[in-house]
Amino acid sequence: MSLEVVFLGTAGSIPTPTRSLPAVAIIRLGELIVFDCGEGIQRQMVKAGIGFNRKTKIFITHMHGDHVLGLPGLIQTMALLHRDKPLEVYGPCGLRAFIQGIEKALRSPPTFPLELKEISQDGLVCDEKDYTVYSMPANHTPPSFSYSLIENDRLGKFYPEKAKALGVPEGALWSGLQQGSVAKLQDGTVVKPDAVVGPPRPGRKIVYSGDTAFSPGLVKLAKDADLLIHDCTFDDDLSDRAKEDGHSTPSQAAKTAQESNAKRLVLTHISARYKTAKKLLDQARKITADADVAEDFMRIQVPLKDIK
Amino acid sequence: MSLEVVFLGTAGSIPTPTRSLPAVAIIRLGELIVFDCGEGIQRQMVKAGIGFNRKTKIFITHMHGDHVLGLPGLIQTMALLHRDKPLEVYGPCGLRAFIQGIEKALRSPPTFPLELKEISQDGLVCDEKDYTVYSMPANHTPPSFSYSLIENDRLGKFYPEKAKALGVPEGALWSGLQQGSVAKLQDGTVVKPDAVVGPPRPGRKIVYSGDTAFSPGLVKLAKDADLLIHDCTFDDDLSDRAKEDGHSTPSQAAKTAQESNAKRLVLTHISARYKTAKKLLDQARKITADADVAEDFMRIQVPLKDIK
Repeated sequence: MSLEVVFLGTAGSIPTPTRSLPAVAIIRLGELIVFDCGEGIQRQMVKAGIGFNRKTKIFITHMHGDHVLGLPGLIQTMALLHRDKPLEVYGPCGLRAFIQGIEKALRSPPTFPLELKEISQDGLVCDEKDYTVYSMPANHTPPSFSYSLIENDRLGKFYPEKAKALGVPEGALWSGLQQGSVAKLQDGTVVKPDAVVGPPRPGRKIVYSGDTAFSPGLVKLAKDADLLIHDCTFDDDLSDRAKEDGHSTPSQAAKTAQESNAKRLVLTHISARYKTAKKLLDQARKITADADVAEDFMRIQVPLKDIK
Repeated sequence: MSLEVVFLGTAGSIPTPTRSLPAVAIIRLGELIVFDCGEGIQRQMVKAGIGFNRKTKIFITHMHGDHVLGLPGLIQTMALLHRDKPLEVYGPCGLRAFIQGIEKALRSPPTFPLELKEISQDGLVCDEKDYTVYSMPANHTPPSFSYSLIENDRLGKFYPEKAKALGVPEGALWSGLQQGSVAKLQDGTVVKPDAVVGPPRPGRKIVYSGDTAFSPGLVKLAKDADLLIHDCTFDDDLSDRAKEDGHSTPSQAAKTAQESNAKRLVLTHISARYKTAKKLLDQARKITADADVAEDFMRIQVPLKDIK
C-alpha cells in the first residue's frame, strides 16, 4: 500500500521561478491529503498529474495568504470540472469567513459538498477508518497548527509455515488467526493467534510543521515520525530573523527531528533569497544525516514498516 | 518610447502546464498596466522579470475567479517587498468587497496606498497625462468590461531642413514651433508651425476584450487599434458552446478585428482542450492575416506611428 508525498510548493512567502507557494500532497490508497494551499496549487496539481475528483482532505496550517490563497481557485476548478465528491477542509478559525466571503463576492458557491471544519485546539482533528490526523499549535502567529498523519497499526505478519506445522488448514482459519481469532481444528486442537502471527505492525507517520519557530510541542507531535516536513525559511546565520518572524533554520529543524527521533527530515518553505539549497542542506546535515531540502515536484515514497 | 505587451497568462478558466490564468501586462515608460489578475500572476511576474514596485495600474474585466484570484497574492507580495507607491485597481462593482473581505479575513491590510476604483458604465475610466483608458461592456456575464488603452497624439514631426531654409535659427524657436507657437525672426519674418512641422502623430491603441462573445460595442472600442487582444476560448466548431458561455471563436475574434480595422490580432484565454494552437490560428487567419495565438511570456513591441 503506497504512500507518496508530492511537494507541490516549497517557497516561503514569495514564489520564485522554481518554487511555488506552500503545498504538500500525500497520495494514499488513491486518497489525496493536502497540507496548505498556496497560490498556484491547482496548476501544480495539473503539472504533477494529480486529478481534481479524488477523495480529498485539505489541512490549512494558518490563515496567512501564502498558505491559503490557492484554495479558492482550487475549489473553483474542481467545480468547473464537475467534481461530485465532498471536499473536507480543516483549518484555524477564520477559514470559513475567508472561503464564504470569496464565494459571496465572486458569486461562486461550490457545486459539490464543501465541508469547512475550523479547529481551535490541539488534538484529534480527524479520525478515519485507517488513519488519524492530529494538530499541535505551532510557534508562529497564532492561530497556527502543525499536523501529523498517523496510520493505524496493521495486522501482524502471518507465518504460513508455522500454521502448516501446527496443522491449521489454509483458508478461513488463516485469515481468522491473523485477525485475532482462535482457531479450533477438527481434532480439537486450539491454536492461538500469537502462535502463527507476529505483533501488530505500526502504521506510517508523516508530520508537517507549517510555519513555526522551534517548538517543544512539535517535538512531541513528531515523535518517531517516518517523515518530518519542516519550515526552513532562513539559514542558521539569520536565526534572529527566523525567531522574530516565527520561522526555523536548518539547525532548529534538525534538532526537532533529532529530539523527536524522526527518521527522515525534509526542509521546505525556503526563502527566495536562496538560489541553491546547499547552505541549508549543509547546516541540517551537521545535526541529522537523513535530511533533504524539498524541491517542487519532488516525490517521496514512504515504505510500509514491519516492526516498531 | 517603447510599449511592450507581455502575456503573463493565456489560459481560459483552468490553467495548464504551459498556460497560467489570464493576465496581460503592458510596460510603457516604466509604468506597468495590467489587464486581469488570474491566479499565479505574481509568479509569472517573477519569471518575466517584472518588478513589484513600479508605477502600476490594474484593470479587472470581471469578477470571475480565473480573472481575479491572483490579485490578493499580488498585493500581499507587494507589501512583503515593501512597496511604497500607490496601486490603482479598476474593476466592476464587487471588486472592493472582494479585496476588503480578504484583507479582513487574512488580517492583511496593504502597507501601501491601495486605490480600488469600481466602474459601473462604459466610457472614460482613467485619464493620465499622456494616455487614457476606456471601457465598454463585454458580451459576457455582466458586469464585465473590455478595455482600450489609447495614447495621446504626439507632436508633429519637425523638419530641420525646412526650418533652416526659412532662416529659423536652431534652438528655442525650433521647439516652440514643434509645440505650436509661431516664430518671429529677427528680420520680422513670421514662420507658422505648419511650415516646418508635420501633423500630430497618433498615439498607439491597445484593446483587451476580456471574456466576451461577439459584441458590436467591442468593434467600436477597437476601432483602428494597433493591437487587439481577444478572447478565443473555443474553436469555430464549438461556436454554440462559445455563445452559451459568453466566449468567442477564432472567426468571431477575427471578424471583430476586421470590422474594427485593428492592425494586429492576438488570441488568448485558450481552453485547456487545445494542446496546440494550430486549429485556432488557421481559423483566424482565414479571415485576418495578421493574427497570432498568445503563449505565456510572449512579448510584443508595439512601434510608434508617424502617420494616421
